[in-house]
Amino acid sequence: MKSWTDRELKEASLSQLNGVCEELRREIFSTVSECGGHLSSNLGAVELTVALHRVFDFPRDKIVFDVGHQCYAHKLLSGRAEQFHTLRKRGGISGFPKREESEYDCYNTGHAGTAVSAALGLSKARDLNGENFDVIALVGDGAFNNGLIYEALSSLKILNSRILIILNDNGMSISPTVGGMHEILNNLKSSSKDFQADFEGGDPDVRVFERFGLKYMGVVDGNDLKKIVPALSAAKDALKEGSVLLHVTTKKGCGYPFCENAPMETHGVSPSGSAKKEYSAALGEELMALAGKDEKIVAVTAAMTDSLGLRPFFEKYPDRGFDVGICEEHAAVLCASMAAGGMKPYFAIYSTFLQRAFDEIIHDICAQKLPVTFCIDRAGVSGADGETHQGVFDLSFLSMIPNLTVAIPKDIGEFRAMIRRSADFRMPLAIRYPREGTEGEISEVEIGKFEVLHSTMSDIVLLAAGERCLKIAWNVREMMLKAGVDVMIVNARFLRPLDEELLSELKERDIYTIEDNVKIGGLGDAVARFYRQKGLKTRVRSFGFEDGFIPHGTPAELMEEFGLSAKEIAKEIISRTRSRGKE
Amino acid sequence: MKSWTDRELKEASLSQLNGVCEELRREIFSTVSECGGHLSSNLGAVELTVALHRVFDFPRDKIVFDVGHQCYAHKLLSGRAEQFHTLRKRGGISGFPKREESEYDCYNTGHAGTAVSAALGLSKARDLNGENFDVIALVGDGAFNNGLIYEALSSLKILNSRILIILNDNGMSISPTVGGMHEILNNLKSSSKDFQADFEGGDPDVRVFERFGLKYMGVVDGNDLKKIVPALSAAKDALKEGSVLLHVTTKKGCGYPFCENAPMETHGVSPSGSAKKEYSAALGEELMALAGKDEKIVAVTAAMTDSLGLRPFFEKYPDRGFDVGICEEHAAVLCASMAAGGMKPYFAIYSTFLQRAFDEIIHDICAQKLPVTFCIDRAGVSGADGETHQGVFDLSFLSMIPNLTVAIPKDIGEFRAMIRRSADFRMPLAIRYPREGTEGEISEVEIGKFEVLHSTMSDIVLLAAGERCLKIAWNVREMMLKAGVDVMIVNARFLRPLDEELLSELKERDIYTIEDNVKIGGLGDAVARFYRQKGLKTRVRSFGFEDGFIPHGTPAELMEEFGLSAKEIAKEIISRTRSRGKE
Repeated sequence: MKSWTDRELKEASLSQLNGVCEELRREIFSTVSECGGHLSSNLGAVELTVALHRVFDFPRDKIVFDVGHQCYAHKLLSGRAEQFHTLRKRGGISGFPKREESEYDCYNTGHAGTAVSAALGLSKARDLNGENFDVIALVGDGAFNNGLIYEALSSLKILNSRILIILNDNGMSISPTVGGMHEILNNLKSSSKDFQADFEGGDPDVRVFERFGLKYMGVVDGNDLKKIVPALSAAKDALKEGSVLLHVTTKKGCGYPFCENAPMETHGVSPSGSAKKEYSAALGEELMALAGKDEKIVAVTAAMTDSLGLRPFFEKYPDRGFDVGICEEHAAVLCASMAAGGMKPYFAIYSTFLQRAFDEIIHDICAQKLPVTFCIDRAGVSGADGETHQGVFDLSFLSMIPNLTVAIPKDIGEFRAMIRRSADFRMPLAIRYPREGTEGEISEVEIGKFEVLHSTMSDIVLLAAGERCLKIAWNVREMMLKAGVDVMIVNARFLRPLDEELLSELKERDIYTIEDNVKIGGLGDAVARFYRQKGLKTRVRSFGFEDGFIPHGTPAELMEEFGLSAKEIAKEIISRTRSRGKE
Repeated sequence: MKSWTDRELKEASLSQLNGVCEELRREIFSTVSECGGHLSSNLGAVELTVALHRVFDFPRDKIVFDVGHQCYAHKLLSGRAEQFHTLRKRGGISGFPKREESEYDCYNTGHAGTAVSAALGLSKARDLNGENFDVIALVGDGAFNNGLIYEALSSLKILNSRILIILNDNGMSISPTVGGMHEILNNLKSSSKDFQADFEGGDPDVRVFERFGLKYMGVVDGNDLKKIVPALSAAKDALKEGSVLLHVTTKKGCGYPFCENAPMETHGVSPSGSAKKEYSAALGEELMALAGKDEKIVAVTAAMTDSLGLRPFFEKYPDRGFDVGICEEHAAVLCASMAAGGMKPYFAIYSTFLQRAFDEIIHDICAQKLPVTFCIDRAGVSGADGETHQGVFDLSFLSMIPNLTVAIPKDIGEFRAMIRRSADFRMPLAIRYPREGTEGEISEVEIGKFEVLHSTMSDIVLLAAGERCLKIAWNVREMMLKAGVDVMIVNARFLRPLDEELLSELKERDIYTIEDNVKIGGLGDAVARFYRQKGLKTRVRSFGFEDGFIPHGTPAELMEEFGLSAKEIAKEIISRTRSRGKE
């Protein structure tokens, strides 16, 4: 599409602006169809974004996109239209705001709920620096349940700065949207038909925001340029006096009837031709089966029921499935306390989002030895969402937590076996797995026991954790065989506890660990620690991700590039084996 | 004091109950004077606790104490009066609720904001189990700012269960208490003089709680048995219909004029005779000096300004000191964004509470390479507060985070030098230190460089991190000298980056690391990883805390008992050295 400048947008007629919106929509739709990405949320925010670029003066003014699922139109309007076809591809532009990419992106996001805090920090820095520009936080209603937002709102008066919070309310965050802030927002939507810049006389729901130091303005249709442009101008004016909350409604998927009618299904879209077996489907099936036999079983998710495979469970056992919204910390404490009350909770979550509940895993679940099972999806590199979504730290941050068992299944069958095994396991348990995999057999799994997949007398042992790393191990073996060396392959399916018996048997051999986690604090460190604390001289060399953040790309590309290439591993092993031969 | 049973409390006259309160107060005051502990908050909650035991039926009914700074009277009334003199002593009763200690404690706490989630989980489990009892969350107004509370409130309608939230409002959490929820509570306190069980006609502040699914009842004087007993009875009745928020005011330190007048100073009390130099005072001094030269410097705390030593800074630079309340996540994002806006933020926090901001350290600060400095106090065992307050995981959870520098000063002088060095450091930096230490010299510190404190030709090298571990190292040397062996002592003051040059020079020797952190994922693992990834056969044996939670006791007792005894370390080194001699 044409690269529109903000100057042109400021001078354009309404019908020209509507034309820009159409172009943006076409571009977003065709690019997401090709590259994957967040479709419906971005389609819904097109008019709002055009209006923002017309009314405000970027990059002088600053906008923080909460999560970042609404930033595509902004990217297209800030000099990145020509590169937009590279969206989410290795080396191409990111699906999230990135300071490194453009001065129009002032703060990187990816996890929900950070935008109000971030806007507040930017505005406070502005005040202290004696500068003069506007700072905007654009937040979806889904994130408005997150605790960070509340903490930031509580700070507005303490920091005494001025920000504009645009609440992009598409009503689609949780299903059903009941309780608390959503009720307040829904009441405001149903009571005020027309946009009001000033509420006199004190609507009680408006008063809530006033207590936090916000002038409430709303509700305005964010898909109608005629309405949203003047509303933004009014908000910009009001911002001179203090912080403002502008309540905007948009329609997720707007402009594409297919998306409008299926906003959940088209929230995140995979590029075409990527259908493999998903671990999440197995989770749903196994938990349903367990729940049929054991009425103590409950499942908790943080606004991710569908992508974690738990929709069927929630439908069959509506009393025992809880989607608490984007509230990872609360979800963890809820699991802890339900377990303290005699239930058997399963907390399903993406690896990267579990970082949010780190303290609660320690403080609430493991310190109290409560039998909560974590089902950790999207572990390892998750791919095109990039650095904020890679699940490459979980083995490290879980490995240090006392009383926790950490399991890494080798395929979906073994994952099923682990879930079955968990049913009467009375301690905290974490099972981490990637999105996709192969089905495999279901055979019994003993806690803390590795599995020897290929046994030889070879001095070289590959201990690999999880499906992707075992695949690498088999590839390494194939390359090594060509050099005349066989290797032993072990499915290292428990990080905690390790299989100390097997490791003791292998103490005379050379151990190579492979994990799709950063090398610091993961499996390699654990295995090496076992040997050295026993005073054994066993050599352990670990392969995993280098110390650093991993950008977007396909999982295969990223693994190859950031430390998990079968070829490089084979080369390194051969070189070490040769130098050892010379000793 | 006499052990009062709940039956006796239910049958007692008002004047007898007042007598019980007097006894409780005396017992709490004298025990805390002896053992240390949380004085003012516990004194303030005496009548409320007696009333709870009169109206409810514990342990059948369940009460969750948020944080736990209000549970002493509850302990004294639940069969623990005779052991109360052992409060916070090794092997004695804990200063926090502990399931392991009594069936009257149904859920362990220590970190703020968990109680509403926990009560909700317990009540939901009750519903699913078809049981019938009441569940209460007792929360201070300080914790009411925490994001977890908001997430839990947002869940009330989703979970559709019934809990009683008692908001113990002593108005003392943050100074000043402005903004948001505090404004709502303050308005309710000033507008409703008498306790109201029912608000007709819709007070807008009451309406807020109704939106979240709570019936608001208040305000009632929680230090007046005549008022609080009937108010609790009314709340218990109302609880049959749905969740209730009972707004109670209490006076921190109530009954002891000295405490009433100095509630902040008497919130936490140290046992007498424990005056050493504190790192926190040095932090305050150094930051004040830096701030005088550099107007970009700002300081952020999460409701801990005094104990972190920053009160003088906040007083001298009120525009650049921000206490955001118990909001660790928000504090971290605020630092990130102020740094993105060109400021130089220092985030001072206790080690254990930093766990709350784990995701934000990764996602907001380190992924964006923002120059935030973490001043991490109470690292290592913090002592009498027990397992929820020990700072023994920080080296592990920080070591895996890319772009982060992690420093561990050997004394207060070196800490000062590190703070000075941080002034123009342009990347994320974490400095962790215990509460108390010795002053020491201030000499320049180069990032990533260890310091050789005692050099010999000995094969044995002790790499120790921080003051406490260096002291152990010197003690180990003294013991070894008696066995005729000298050892080298190195101040391992950076975990990230390691001093690879020095480590390379030491590769032929036997390395022993000492750290007051769990052994998993800390300094020992990092040093060992360095050698093994280079293919070197250097032996590394690490000493630190065993894999487990560390209960309450004095730091000296706990270090000795949980893995850091100079005698045991010396014994182990001698035994290894001998067996090596035989090889």
